[in-house]
Amino acid sequence: MFPKNTWYVACMPDEVEDKPLGRTICNEQIVFFRAEGGQIAAVEDFCPHRGAPLSLGFVRDGQLVCGYHGLEMGCEGKCTSMPGQRVRGFPSIHAYPVVERHGFIWVWPGDAEQADPDQIPELHWANDPEWAYGGGLYHINCDYRLMIDNLMDLTHETYVHASSIGQPEIEESAPETKVNGDEVLTIRHMENITAPPFWQSALRGNNLAGDVPVDRWQICRFTPPSHILIEVGVAHAGKGGYDAPADTKASSIVVDFITPETETSIWYFWGMARNFNPQDEALTEQIREGQGQIFSEDLEMLESQQRNLLRYPERRLLMLNIDGGGVQARRVIDRILKAEAENAQPQAATAS
Amino acid sequence: MFPKNTWYVACMPDEVEDKPLGRTICNEQIVFFRAEGGQIAAVEDFCPHRGAPLSLGFVRDGQLVCGYHGLEMGCEGKCTSMPGQRVRGFPSIHAYPVVERHGFIWVWPGDAEQADPDQIPELHWANDPEWAYGGGLYHINCDYRLMIDNLMDLTHETYVHASSIGQPEIEESAPETKVNGDEVLTIRHMENITAPPFWQSALRGNNLAGDVPVDRWQICRFTPPSHILIEVGVAHAGKGGYDAPADTKASSIVVDFITPETETSIWYFWGMARNFNPQDEALTEQIREGQGQIFSEDLEMLESQQRNLLRYPERRLLMLNIDGGGVQARRVIDRILKAEAENAQPQAATAS
Amino acid sequence: MFPKNTWYVACMPDEVEDKPLGRTICNEQIVFFRAEGGQIAAVEDFCPHRGAPLSLGFVRDGQLVCGYHGLEMGCEGKCTSMPGQRVRGFPSIHAYPVVERHGFIWVWPGDAEQADPDQIPELHWANDPEWAYGGGLYHINCDYRLMIDNLMDLTHETYVHASSIGQPEIEESAPETKVNGDEVLTIRHMENITAPPFWQSALRGNNLAGDVPVDRWQICRFTPPSHILIEVGVAHAGKGGYDAPADTKASSIVVDFITPETETSIWYFWGMARNFNPQDEALTEQIREGQGQIFSEDLEMLESQQRNLLRYPERRLLMLNIDGGGVQARRVIDRILKAEAENAQPQAATAS
Repeated sequence: MFPKNTWYVACMPDEVEDKPLGRTICNEQIVFFRAEGGQIAAVEDFCPHRGAPLSLGFVRDGQLVCGYHGLEMGCEGKCTSMPGQRVRGFPSIHAYPVVERHGFIWVWPGDAEQADPDQIPELHWANDPEWAYGGGLYHINCDYRLMIDNLMDLTHETYVHASSIGQPEIEESAPETKVNGDEVLTIRHMENITAPPFWQSALRGNNLAGDVPVDRWQICRFTPPSHILIEVGVAHAGKGGYDAPADTKASSIVVDFITPETETSIWYFWGMARNFNPQDEALTEQIREGQGQIFSEDLEMLESQQRNLLRYPERRLLMLNIDGGGVQARRVIDRILKAEAENAQPQAATAS
Repeated sequence: MFPKNTWYVACMPDEVEDKPLGRTICNEQIVFFRAEGGQIAAVEDFCPHRGAPLSLGFVRDGQLVCGYHGLEMGCEGKCTSMPGQRVRGFPSIHAYPVVERHGFIWVWPGDAEQADPDQIPELHWANDPEWAYGGGLYHINCDYRLMIDNLMDLTHETYVHASSIGQPEIEESAPETKVNGDEVLTIRHMENITAPPFWQSALRGNNLAGDVPVDRWQICRFTPPSHILIEVGVAHAGKGGYDAPADTKASSIVVDFITPETETSIWYFWGMARNFNPQDEALTEQIREGQGQIFSEDLEMLESQQRNLLRYPERRLLMLNIDGGGVQARRVIDRILKAEAENAQPQAATAS
Repeated sequence: MFPKNTWYVACMPDEVEDKPLGRTICNEQIVFFRAEGGQIAAVEDFCPHRGAPLSLGFVRDGQLVCGYHGLEMGCEGKCTSMPGQRVRGFPSIHAYPVVERHGFIWVWPGDAEQADPDQIPELHWANDPEWAYGGGLYHINCDYRLMIDNLMDLTHETYVHASSIGQPEIEESAPETKVNGDEVLTIRHMENITAPPFWQSALRGNNLAGDVPVDRWQICRFTPPSHILIEVGVAHAGKGGYDAPADTKASSIVVDFITPETETSIWYFWGMARNFNPQDEALTEQIREGQGQIFSEDLEMLESQQRNLLRYPERRLLMLNIDGGGVQARRVIDRILKAEAENAQPQAATAS
């Protein structure tokens, strides 16, 4: 159960350069490729000739060529040619709305007619030379909502990421959860604490002392369908915390785009955008490696939790104050799912 | 859905020399072994004592001995002895008609009473010193009919085997499909073309120039249940093509015996019989390795196609002129399946 | 189908020293840990907060701490604390009766109210300095009753363990099976035979000649639910066999505790208790390695047998005299299962 009439991150641009990329998103098997002029295209990964996956083929002159018998598929899902054949009567396959923007490739797995590129979220940092971005991709066998829960309740850092970003003060500071329409915020401030290793390193990366008391903040922002951007940072204590001057703090945005693959698996695009030393590529790489290591610690927990929940489907989980962000985000998702279900009849008529 | 009252290739003789071989064929779990005098035998792979697979046992004096508690099974499926036991009342297991002929071991998975060794296909090249044969075995997770489609439509060579036997002229030459009773033929001739690498090498193997224009032919011959023999070759251009004198061409027979394991997996016995330089064993090995490499290129495509078709069972595939051989072969198979279903009632009474 | 109101071996003490151990027993997912004072505890492996497996957590001050968000679980299945939370109203999870005794950890997967530690079997050798014990653990994908059959019919040694403890005389000596209430005995004596390699080595380990004729015995003792202790040994021939003086024989007890994991998989705790040279730890290790090697030979057979039986569920197996021990043991188990089913209604009311 995931919203389908919405934009998800499908892949990174460099995953679909020289050859097509097959990827399942929201149970849709999709092949992405570069059409004429390098424009991104996405169609069903199913050749209408004999059912071979088009992703095993190749791209020639902006057309996707099936690797089995050479049927040529265009970016609109219409067969453009096939050796020795007249293709006019060939059945089309579904073409998915797809947009390359902000350094990501976005796909709309639902009703193509409703797709509006203006609904792709604005990511100011992605197009600003004052910011740098580094990130990666993990495949995790869990419901996308378990990942939302994880990111909207950072008390888990104390346990799962004890050696890097976790610290007891996180769980000792009650979070505040706010809902603004479809946006859910979970906010936590910790004052006059010792920075954990990751943030000491970040302070030093910003030419600041790392071993002094700091004020720390975490502002988790959920927007549908499953995007979570987290403003995080530390400032030297007493300088104003989140609002402190730039030369007294290290801050960044943790970027989490969660894309359902199936009901129980996700593509997890993670990264960090920062506005200090943006030109320092070695620092970008160092942060990316550290973050990749930290985020990999969540995988076993999430997959084990998913297995447990599948085994005990009838059990009700607790919803504590720390779970407020996840609970509210699920309410937003449920509202969207309900609206999609109510519109399902006309949608079925227009979708392929 | 596969014909069961018919002969399939079960294994190669060298697979069942010193010890028994367990293999599932048409959903039947069978153990093959050498009975008295080295004669091939085949019975259910299920010890009537405690259900252990007999294929984990060993052969002693022409009897198959269960490796768990020593029950001795004879080639007729009757227990012949067991240490400390009177075995007269022991239940029998099914014995499968099995014949070693033409360098293959053939099994009849259906009603044993209908088995007639005269129905094993004649393979003239298998017993002729003017011919040499080399081949191998692949296990592929696909419906046996997908492999038939593959072999009856060689346009795929241009894409799947581009670097060895594929060439654009294949798809540019429309094939002709003929049906003679249960036999289906797909014929393609290409004139005055450049030989692809495999055939240039074969011409040189036959002491002929490889880099001159050639006429090329492919004559695919399907016979039930799923045997496909393909006459292939090239002759120096203008010498008569298929009918050219032997000293101007290189030709051979591609041998394909497709044996269903389950509904969605096969044992694929492939090979090549040739009548040039038959005594040159190094050439046999070289061809075998080249062919093995080429045929392995089909595996990923077939298995991916199978997964796609299982996911979209309702989709209808295209049946183009190039698919004619496969389409006609499936008609023959459907006719046989229908006849077997109609005879199923009496058959059930006689089968084990 | 396994008895649940009974004691099973859950694990060895050294498996649950520094960190919790998650293990499924009789389809129950259980986490074992050391509570206050090192006392063993066992609760459901499911955190009531968000469903994470508690076995991924750690132990702190005798409490099991969830590795996701820090919920602290006590040995009674009651949450004792959680950072920033009042836990009084938190739901409890099931706590399993668990006892450390005789060098094993025993768990009662059924109705906790019926658990009586006095029902844990007496193992005199486990607490006697005249005896030494060494053993190991195998996970096997088979119904626990197939392992019982295996151990109550040692004729399989001739085939499965031909190079170590098997010998033709085993199958030539008809066994005797006795039933005493819930206890089943299968007894075999072999007189004036050559000792097989394992026993020649054991005789030498006991400072006796190994290459002389011996009398050999095997006394398999099944007690519910699935414990099998086998008295085995050899004495120099004519000295009285089982009753021969200690300085003319080598004898020991093969220890087999079979714990169902699921319907088709087991935890198999195997070992050997001996009363010769008990202080010789190198000998203990040597026997343990030899026995581990021998018992590993059963794995493929048991798993293959299980697959065969799942494929042919309707087939009836033979029950020969050699199968008497297994047949009688299954009768005892069936009686217990029937009694548990009849008591199931009240049991369901008391169990969690």
